Amino acid sequence: MSQSVMVDGNEAAASVAHRLNEVIAIYPITPASPMGELSDAWSAAGRRNIFGTVPSVIEMQSEAGAAGTVHGALQAGALTTTFTASQGLLLMIPNMFKIAGELTSTVFHVAARSIATHALSIFGDHSDVMATRSTGWAMLCAASVQEAHDFALVAHAATLEARVPFLHFFDGFRTSHEINLIEELSDDDLRAMLPMDLVQAHRERALSPDRPVLRGSAQNPDVFFQAREAANSFYDATPDIVQQYFDRFAELTGRQYGIFEYVGADDAERVIVVMGSGIGAVEEAVQHLVASGEKVGLVKVRLYRPLDVKRFLETLPDTVQRIAVLDRTKEPGAVGEPLYQDVVAALAESDSARPVRPHVIGGRFGLSSKEFTPAMAEAVFAELRNPTPKRHFTIGIKDDVTHLSLDWDADAFREPADVRRAVFYGLGSDGTVGANKNSVKIVGENTPLFAQGYFVYDSKKAGAVTISHLRFSPRPIHSTYLINRADFVACHQFQFLETRDVLDVAETGATFLLNAPYETDEVWSRLPLEVQQQIIDKELKFYVVDALRLAGELGLGTRINTVMQTCFFALAEILPREESIAHIKQAIQKTYGKRGDVVVQKNCAAVDRAIEAMHQIELPETASSEVRRRPPVPENSPDFVKRVTGLMLAGLGDRLPVSALPVDGTFPTGTAAFEKRSIAHSIPIWDPDICIQCGLCSLVCPHAAIRSKAFPQNSVNGNAPAGFQTLPWTGKDLPDHNMVIQVAPDDCTGCGVCV
Amino acid sequence: MSQSVMVDGNEAAASVAHRLNEVIAIYPITPASPMGELSDAWSAAGRRNIFGTVPSVIEMQSEAGAAGTVHGALQAGALTTTFTASQGLLLMIPNMFKIAGELTSTVFHVAARSIATHALSIFGDHSDVMATRSTGWAMLCAASVQEAHDFALVAHAATLEARVPFLHFFDGFRTSHEINLIEELSDDDLRAMLPMDLVQAHRERALSPDRPVLRGSAQNPDVFFQAREAANSFYDATPDIVQQYFDRFAELTGRQYGIFEYVGADDAERVIVVMGSGIGAVEEAVQHLVASGEKVGLVKVRLYRPLDVKRFLETLPDTVQRIAVLDRTKEPGAVGEPLYQDVVAALAESDSARPVRPHVIGGRFGLSSKEFTPAMAEAVFAELRNPTPKRHFTIGIKDDVTHLSLDWDADAFREPADVRRAVFYGLGSDGTVGANKNSVKIVGENTPLFAQGYFVYDSKKAGAVTISHLRFSPRPIHSTYLINRADFVACHQFQFLETRDVLDVAETGATFLLNAPYETDEVWSRLPLEVQQQIIDKELKFYVVDALRLAGELGLGTRINTVMQTCFFALAEILPREESIAHIKQAIQKTYGKRGDVVVQKNCAAVDRAIEAMHQIELPETASSEVRRRPPVPENSPDFVKRVTGLMLAGLGDRLPVSALPVDGTFPTGTAAFEKRSIAHSIPIWDPDICIQCGLCSLVCPHAAIRSKAFPQNSVNGNAPAGFQTLPWTGKDLPDHNMVIQVAPDDCTGCGVCV
Repeated sequence: MSQSVMVDGNEAAASVAHRLNEVIAIYPITPASPMGELSDAWSAAGRRNIFGTVPSVIEMQSEAGAAGTVHGALQAGALTTTFTASQGLLLMIPNMFKIAGELTSTVFHVAARSIATHALSIFGDHSDVMATRSTGWAMLCAASVQEAHDFALVAHAATLEARVPFLHFFDGFRTSHEINLIEELSDDDLRAMLPMDLVQAHRERALSPDRPVLRGSAQNPDVFFQAREAANSFYDATPDIVQQYFDRFAELTGRQYGIFEYVGADDAERVIVVMGSGIGAVEEAVQHLVASGEKVGLVKVRLYRPLDVKRFLETLPDTVQRIAVLDRTKEPGAVGEPLYQDVVAALAESDSARPVRPHVIGGRFGLSSKEFTPAMAEAVFAELRNPTPKRHFTIGIKDDVTHLSLDWDADAFREPADVRRAVFYGLGSDGTVGANKNSVKIVGENTPLFAQGYFVYDSKKAGAVTISHLRFSPRPIHSTYLINRADFVACHQFQFLETRDVLDVAETGATFLLNAPYETDEVWSRLPLEVQQQIIDKELKFYVVDALRLAGELGLGTRINTVMQTCFFALAEILPREESIAHIKQAIQKTYGKRGDVVVQKNCAAVDRAIEAMHQIELPETASSEVRRRPPVPENSPDFVKRVTGLMLAGLGDRLPVSALPVDGTFPTGTAAFEKRSIAHSIPIWDPDICIQCGLCSLVCPHAAIRSKAFPQNSVNGNAPAGFQTLPWTGKDLPDHNMVIQVAPDDCTGCGVCV
Repeated sequence: MSQSVMVDGNEAAASVAHRLNEVIAIYPITPASPMGELSDAWSAAGRRNIFGTVPSVIEMQSEAGAAGTVHGALQAGALTTTFTASQGLLLMIPNMFKIAGELTSTVFHVAARSIATHALSIFGDHSDVMATRSTGWAMLCAASVQEAHDFALVAHAATLEARVPFLHFFDGFRTSHEINLIEELSDDDLRAMLPMDLVQAHRERALSPDRPVLRGSAQNPDVFFQAREAANSFYDATPDIVQQYFDRFAELTGRQYGIFEYVGADDAERVIVVMGSGIGAVEEAVQHLVASGEKVGLVKVRLYRPLDVKRFLETLPDTVQRIAVLDRTKEPGAVGEPLYQDVVAALAESDSARPVRPHVIGGRFGLSSKEFTPAMAEAVFAELRNPTPKRHFTIGIKDDVTHLSLDWDADAFREPADVRRAVFYGLGSDGTVGANKNSVKIVGENTPLFAQGYFVYDSKKAGAVTISHLRFSPRPIHSTYLINRADFVACHQFQFLETRDVLDVAETGATFLLNAPYETDEVWSRLPLEVQQQIIDKELKFYVVDALRLAGELGLGTRINTVMQTCFFALAEILPREESIAHIKQAIQKTYGKRGDVVVQKNCAAVDRAIEAMHQIELPETASSEVRRRPPVPENSPDFVKRVTGLMLAGLGDRLPVSALPVDGTFPTGTAAFEKRSIAHSIPIWDPDICIQCGLCSLVCPHAAIRSKAFPQNSVNGNAPAGFQTLPWTGKDLPDHNMVIQVAPDDCTGCGVCV
């Protein structure tokens, strides 16, 4: 019996990889790190693979070393894997050519990520995997958490038969970090798919003194070319092998996949071809448009290499007249992006009596995790109806320079009303994300509902805004995009309301939960006028809780997550209240159990007292606040900071057009001075009476928010503002000097290191 | 005034690169090494660039380090370059993405080489440069030594204006190591092409505390995509910029190039598209076929990235119905190779009213320096006339497994009779190649004739066969393939005749010069029967010289090169005899001057005595030798050794079909035991009378050809063959034992280390 579990894509893939391998060489890199870290932890805990041994997890000094280790272990006959992304994958390219040339069975699992160009980015697109498409590896692309689990198995099984190594990849963050409900493959499932005779054949190809062979030779012009062609048959056979394992997998699990899959109208005239998580958004658009009678469809690409031209052409309905190929990568200087060119080439090779040769256009989307929504997919379908569609386009941005971008109407597509959509604003390290991960697991694993959690981080990590997107649905959730209309919005940090349009995402009648460090009757007046107006206009159900005070009273410090999670469950009513409370307490036991009973008890107390601490606010007729939302940067900031940096700080960077960005990644310096985040709940106060002038407070402040300065005494005589405290400088080096220690409240994060 | 010089492609490119740069980061790799080594030597000798400074040449610990150094130096505003190939280029990929993303002007010069797959190969093809085509670099491909010189300049000039970095590449060995006559660019030419305002602009983009900017930041999903699109205009502009510099270059030098160039019939129906040195062979085929009235043509690709679709379509005659695209690379699993897919995509984007959309087929050729000849190009044109041509094919090999290869008739194309063609067989390190390099320089730089030298090495280096291919022509020589019909053949090592078909390349009536360690009247009878028969059948003019004896008499040891070179000039009559002798002596002065006057005098004496030592042999009516050519491996060798290794050792590896080669580079071990090269002119003889049993002779023999063994005395008593010499073992560890030291004459190379 298979079990349903809530996991993210990384865990889904690693769970299979760890159980199927003997050697795992790692050098963790975002967003693939959790695959390596989980494998390391599992092996450290003695977890065994399906062969009954604990995989040897070896961390190297770079991905180049990891790839070399993989190559070496494979040559010793071990079942071997690794996990990587981005530049890490680039460092593996030399070994990848060798591993493929030697027809060596292995799978690399890649959480696909942007390659650093004008700027580094930790986010997801296909530029890394596409940069390895010369290497002769098979490339299998999973589009969801379930597929990252399933395709990991299919890849490991197929490579043993095909002898072509497999790159199994899925979208960094969108799939690697999305938590979704999957049917977990059991060890028996894995065993049923893995042909042990092929495992044995792999072992027998090892370099061994018992059966010595020569491998890794040098060849000259006389034979290299012939030898290179000698592997052709293996590539020719690989697509059939993958499809056979897909079919066998379907018999075992009921989940049927195809190398290419078509969904949409049988008589589609306009079709999108795409691979990766973008499939989720396009499929919803197709369902929506087909329901309105439009003749559209989607070809999902699963096995990108070897590209099976015949199967691709068979998958495409004969009625198709226009095709838009979406590539999640950019290759400046090429005729078009890789998948586009492949589709063009495949169609050019079509010998069939297809009534029309489809007109093909190609678009870039989703670079570095740029949002890609069903509304955008509908804009692409609309472009395909244009008499002269753009041959090359972008979707998801506004290109006001080379004018390649398509416009889209964000409201063209709405999610079904029975999908519950909750968005939470938290601060990095305030526990919001962790609590929300628990929440989706509680719902996904304990109710008939399907659940999905996706978490938007800023690469500033601790101290930056986190936005959690949670969906709960009676149907499996394939919505691979952020929530843009939420029926529940929680703001875990009051100060976000002062600079950021938190309620933009709230739909009319939504519930709004606010953690506010004020008395209940004081909260309304503390809201900026713009927020008051939104609450009234959208008729929100508005609840407040002073979670920080409650957490403080219970000895939880600034950890407000348990209080906020309890309030969410109470308001969202996804589960009966008592049941949800029991689940939260179980999760507390699981999360904090190893920190001791006291911590568990404090959190359980927070659950019990959270609901009584929460209050609904009656809405007045009109907004009347004297507080205004502040601009993210001061009015006196330089032009670039106001025009570009300011919008990025306000969370509105998506609205910046191409012209706003430097062409080569070159930015002005010193702009951090204009970012006043004011995120500290408490700040240090200098007490001159006990100061020994050691300077340590200034030294340890990681944000340079505590500065000390010595100055001539006469420079402040009479001119200092009232209350300006100083001390005579005790050092002999500067006679007649005073010193001061000052804290910059807006730059301080309240991290407490100085205390 | 420009000067004509004989240089190879590496020197041609490095000469420009060294003069145009300030920082040169190197990590030499075959076949690009000479570019780095020359730059290092020039800077060590104080040679200045056109800015009056000596370029700083920095050798790193790998190509990854070299690329990082380039990136860093560029960010400091220095004009910077590097040279690399193959895996070296792969290690540069991460930095290449960054350099391009930051729109940084630089040129990498690449002697394109195979990437190691089933086997390493030091030879030439485009698999390395093609593996970097995702990086966003412009790619400019030189097809000849002159172009490697000219395009180096155009690339350096264009990158400063375009801001897109340039990969300037040419074919490893075929261009990098071919010596040809070029018009040398003067410093004034370089200055005239390099816009100093753009150099200044490059410097001003440096990271500097005087003008601080931020570069190398991290970006999030909000803006990365827009910023990536912000560079589009630079790529759009690059082809025009390159063409403008080509045009400016033509005004300066009279040599006009185009991004794409067409040659052939104005009304061509069948066209080959190709880049790199293959152009030379195809162009000769086109000239030949057009002269016979065939409607064929050639599109030369110079600027591969950014690929200018519009210019490509304009270059292609409207009459074209069939196109064969030749790729010098292989990407297993792709629909087709890169240039093929680009041509297909470009044609699909053609909006013009072209009467027919051409049918495109794609072929691989020349992997790892596999020969590509005009005859093969003619076979491709023939395939294009086939009603159903192979969509994907190979040319230059016999594929009896996947049947992709085209057959060709090697005799379909003959070089013009007025092109003198000389082929020399020598032994690695016997001086043959060095002397032949001098010979082509003498002719190219001192006569109205054009000259070309190309040298085929075995990767065994010292002790293996070298084959020198020299052409002399009244016209510029673009024949980018080996000589297959020579009017002069020299065999510098008699023993080659015993195992290798040296005279296969000789055409009827050719001159054959043999170095034979025998008296003149004894030579004929020493020839294997097969060789006698060839000499008679082909009516060769047969000359012999005992160069080794003459060299020995003159104190030159085994250095026979001066003797053989003098004989060549005397027989070939390319120059009046006295003139050629004077040139040889000048070359001796240049080559050996620094070793002192004695060496120079000895070599000059060799020149003076060579001609009298040479004798023509009168040919008998019939062959009568009792000697037979031996098989390269013994009859009792294992099947694989006889079938595969044996042919490779005989220099016939080109004839092996695909089925003969392992699919994954795995070979049987221990096969070197069957290769008996017998190349030693003298071998050591064990003298038991003076042996102290120290074992050093066995220890120092680099070829393991001297073995010592101790054995029980009674094991040889009475059974030893006559003359078997042994000594009583002096060690106390083995009482009643004898020892013997034996030399394996066929394995000994006569290197003399043991003496």
